[in-house]
Amino acid sequence: MNIICNKNQLAKGVGIVSRAVSGKTTLPILECILLDATSGEFTLIGNDLDMGIKTVLEANIKEQGTIAVNAKIFNEIIRKLPDEDVSIETDERNNITIRCAKSKFNIPGQSSADFPELPTIESNHQLVLSQGIFKNMIHETIFSIAPEDSGRPILTGELIDVRDGYLHLVAVDGFRISMRRTEVNSENDFKVTVPGKALNEIHKILASEDDELMTVSFTGKHILFQMNETLVVTRLLEGEFLQYQRNLSMDFTSKIRINKKDLLDSIDRAALISRESKNSPVRLEIDKEKMVITSNTELGSAYEEVPLQLEGEGLTIAFNPKYYLEALRVIEEEEVCILYSSSLTPCIIQDPEKEDYQYFILPIRLHA
Amino acid sequence: MNIICNKNQLAKGVGIVSRAVSGKTTLPILECILLDATSGEFTLIGNDLDMGIKTVLEANIKEQGTIAVNAKIFNEIIRKLPDEDVSIETDERNNITIRCAKSKFNIPGQSSADFPELPTIESNHQLVLSQGIFKNMIHETIFSIAPEDSGRPILTGELIDVRDGYLHLVAVDGFRISMRRTEVNSENDFKVTVPGKALNEIHKILASEDDELMTVSFTGKHILFQMNETLVVTRLLEGEFLQYQRNLSMDFTSKIRINKKDLLDSIDRAALISRESKNSPVRLEIDKEKMVITSNTELGSAYEEVPLQLEGEGLTIAFNPKYYLEALRVIEEEEVCILYSSSLTPCIIQDPEKEDYQYFILPIRLHA
Repeated sequence: MNIICNKNQLAKGVGIVSRAVSGKTTLPILECILLDATSGEFTLIGNDLDMGIKTVLEANIKEQGTIAVNAKIFNEIIRKLPDEDVSIETDERNNITIRCAKSKFNIPGQSSADFPELPTIESNHQLVLSQGIFKNMIHETIFSIAPEDSGRPILTGELIDVRDGYLHLVAVDGFRISMRRTEVNSENDFKVTVPGKALNEIHKILASEDDELMTVSFTGKHILFQMNETLVVTRLLEGEFLQYQRNLSMDFTSKIRINKKDLLDSIDRAALISRESKNSPVRLEIDKEKMVITSNTELGSAYEEVPLQLEGEGLTIAFNPKYYLEALRVIEEEEVCILYSSSLTPCIIQDPEKEDYQYFILPIRLHA
Repeated sequence: MNIICNKNQLAKGVGIVSRAVSGKTTLPILECILLDATSGEFTLIGNDLDMGIKTVLEANIKEQGTIAVNAKIFNEIIRKLPDEDVSIETDERNNITIRCAKSKFNIPGQSSADFPELPTIESNHQLVLSQGIFKNMIHETIFSIAPEDSGRPILTGELIDVRDGYLHLVAVDGFRISMRRTEVNSENDFKVTVPGKALNEIHKILASEDDELMTVSFTGKHILFQMNETLVVTRLLEGEFLQYQRNLSMDFTSKIRINKKDLLDSIDRAALISRESKNSPVRLEIDKEKMVITSNTELGSAYEEVPLQLEGEGLTIAFNPKYYLEALRVIEEEEVCILYSSSLTPCIIQDPEKEDYQYFILPIRLHA
């Protein structure tokens, strides 16, 4: 292989495909990325067998060929090269020579024959989505997936639930449900569960702009995201996701409207007092005019007041402040609605106007 | 005690004096800061017995008094309060009530009687220095103090050496000497060694502006920095510092001038190849026109060229790249001079025009 390409584009591409390279593995080939200039275009591929990323770069291909190279050292070298054209050349013993301005590196490569192929996707469903919107939706829900050691593998991913003209992204950890939705054009309804780890990486690759589009394709086993010159394919989680819809469409007897920032700041301060004592709740007392937020532990006590508008009955209810804080921090609207029925049943934080986001949170039982 | 003060000034002051509060200690009083409103002004003090910091705040003192409070929780509460006036009130049982807008906190305090007093300084030497310049001088030398576990306690600090109208700040770790100097007005020559840990904290407190001044006062046991409303006093290290002057005033037979950024970037890249193999040197081959920088390990090989101007003889010499990189990263000038005599003797990186900085570095012996 012998190619010449732009340093910045190469560095960007290597950075992207390196996201699918295993950090810890006993197979050296899985620590590699594949450089492939066999088919008239120059592609980079990373593949840890759960997720694969492929990106196409502009390059002047002087001699076709393909080679695998350790992702970490290759990434570091390319990033630090001067901003000029880079040439990459291999010999018959898989040695790689990288040249740029007055720099020259020789590093060993590995035969591309051992590099795992990306799964072939024959999709039965396709959607077009905004990259910026989907990127935000991941950020606004992924904090409430279950941890890897939770014993419920299906909840370590997020559900993509396409129905009724909306794509819903849903994360559940047993104590709360976080849901964001966006309108989509889809003839079919369907559900898949995408591993949280893959969504975290996809989040970093997605463009921030709402008007950058991507195509999402689904099969029974995989999901594929195609964004401009980059393609991400990831294995789906198998099993039945929680029937979250029941919870989100519960009837509630009361509803408040409250300033989001005031509520967030007040709970954040009250949580300072409850933080050291694990699971010590923050208590909310709601009446017609205000919410009083209190916390009492051996560290001291906190008292906060936030004005609100109430429809229905006041009550006293307690929560793990972390669940409130994580939801409120990703809500951008000035005002939120909180729906509730009793001190022992869940509440939902949602958009006052529509239901584009819903954060369902279980309370903590108060001692008498 | 009952005082009212501005939230932002209080948060800034608490942040500053908290730098002298022990993280790890078995004495709860050393985890505290002292709030003192007994003398008509409101002061905050932190003191870990090695270093003490005191700062004076504007406040409306409604009732005189003094109390010690856990630095961590107090700092967190104050930082998160709304931007309004804060009132702090204590009762006879050392309970502290903090009020701000609609927030109220109760936390336990401790009697100020147990709080260690700051040492009294009767200084025999005083200097006036620019805060911004001294801040930079710390940053530009402190990376080469000896680590705490080096077995040479005196080298875990930096020498302040005032002589010949200059203040020299010097750090030595056994493999290199880093020196920066600045002109000062001083009638006496003297030397003291300041603990690296204290300099690190002082670095964070100093203003960045060159025209902000501070007064530095010395006794046999302590050094005191007075900057605007804040005073830092720290214990000095005892013992004889290295006689660094001999090393820095050696005669050298050759001298090159070289572009700083090109040299830094090239060594940085070559070090990628040597990094994984511990202590693997980077090799510099100097001739009339260029420096060739190479590195060869089991990871591969790197080759770099940087043009230069030579006075004297070329040579081949090897170094731990880290020592070059750390020095070059803090040099702001476009060009540097490197002085050397042979492959087995030290080199010095210095200012081409004067000697306001000198980085003395021992070479690594090359295998034949």
